[in-house]
Amino acid sequence: MDPYSDEKIVESWEGNVSQWTAAVRGGHIESRQLITDKAVVEAVLSHAPESVLDIGCGEGWLIRELSSQVTRLVGLDVVPGLIERAERAGGGDFRVTSYEDIAAGAVDGLFDVVVCNFSLLGKESVEVLFAAIPAILKPGGVFVVQTLHPVIAGVLPYIDGWREGSWAGFGPEFIEPAPWYFRTLGNWVALFSDNGFRLLDMREPIHPNTHKPVSVIFTGALEDRQVTSE
Amino acid sequence: MDPYSDEKIVESWEGNVSQWTAAVRGGHIESRQLITDKAVVEAVLSHAPESVLDIGCGEGWLIRELSSQVTRLVGLDVVPGLIERAERAGGGDFRVTSYEDIAAGAVDGLFDVVVCNFSLLGKESVEVLFAAIPAILKPGGVFVVQTLHPVIAGVLPYIDGWREGSWAGFGPEFIEPAPWYFRTLGNWVALFSDNGFRLLDMREPIHPNTHKPVSVIFTGALEDRQVTSE
Repeated sequence: MDPYSDEKIVESWEGNVSQWTAAVRGGHIESRQLITDKAVVEAVLSHAPESVLDIGCGEGWLIRELSSQVTRLVGLDVVPGLIERAERAGGGDFRVTSYEDIAAGAVDGLFDVVVCNFSLLGKESVEVLFAAIPAILKPGGVFVVQTLHPVIAGVLPYIDGWREGSWAGFGPEFIEPAPWYFRTLGNWVALFSDNGFRLLDMREPIHPNTHKPVSVIFTGALEDRQVTSE
Repeated sequence: MDPYSDEKIVESWEGNVSQWTAAVRGGHIESRQLITDKAVVEAVLSHAPESVLDIGCGEGWLIRELSSQVTRLVGLDVVPGLIERAERAGGGDFRVTSYEDIAAGAVDGLFDVVVCNFSLLGKESVEVLFAAIPAILKPGGVFVVQTLHPVIAGVLPYIDGWREGSWAGFGPEFIEPAPWYFRTLGNWVALFSDNGFRLLDMREPIHPNTHKPVSVIFTGALEDRQVTSE
């Protein structure tokens, strides 16, 4: 298997299901605890959605977090072990579904918000997924993506491309770090723009101690295809 | 005069006309020589414009640079001394015009590209200017803005607000540095979005030695108000 490939990412996550579930549920990831969990929840709820689709939902924390305020919640993840953990914890409907499945039309119904929280790590799989989102959004719906802040990540050279992964900051129980496809901010903006989205906003939640941004949250809406007047 | 104000920025530039003109024309500003001049020229010419309006044109280098390839070129700047230098060097039409004047309708005609190259330094003046751009763009026209990369600038805390200026890296002949209103990337994106622009792309030219982004170039187009089909 190509060590820098979308397949390798999935394989790596399949080996870290219990470690990851324990880390998320134990609150071991400081940036999530302090900043990014709250930020993505706020970004989603600011649209007062009745339905949310969480793509790359992992063990399902975001669905559970939203469950008191959103009627219809669906979480998708390609890793069966994570979906199993999510189903056991409840809060919404969970299904094993790959990004390629989604691109092939696997999603039923339309959603007010589609969200990807730190779940867009690959190359082709992300590109086909972006192209598929417009078809699963309700009119007026939005696509919310949170990702590591590309500039703050300090990845050099600052150009798109595959990078080696690392579990630095996680425990020794984590194995085989996943490679990831680094995208500049410009690349993310182009993914939205090239797929017919208007970027409504780009939030950069800041760390309360360093005062630097930690992540970036893009919110895109489909371009209005109707005649509007001022 | 409020030391942190749009008025103070203009006053500072009025005191640095000859210093600035010498620095630009002598190629003394490394980031411009190496990276950002070429980047903004490419961003503008990629739209093959017949007409370009350069707002905050300074001593006029960009207009001169574009003059062999663009038919109609107009440069505006609020500082009379800079417009005088620009007129003497030629390449297009130059006029003393403030951003508030532009907001009040001072621009004649419509343009394929409106460009602001490191010229959006203030608060209210920038906000009123953004709101005025849609009315001076041709259908299908674009607004191109180059600015210091807010994340790379290392300004902390990373929140919008006035900051003290500095001429660090410039010679001792520069006086009274201008204050500037720091905007996060999110703030720039909102300026486009809130004024009816779709962000087409966001380029981040990188430094050939540090491999980090130096600046950011936003290109926005007005949202299509017509019915389109896929």
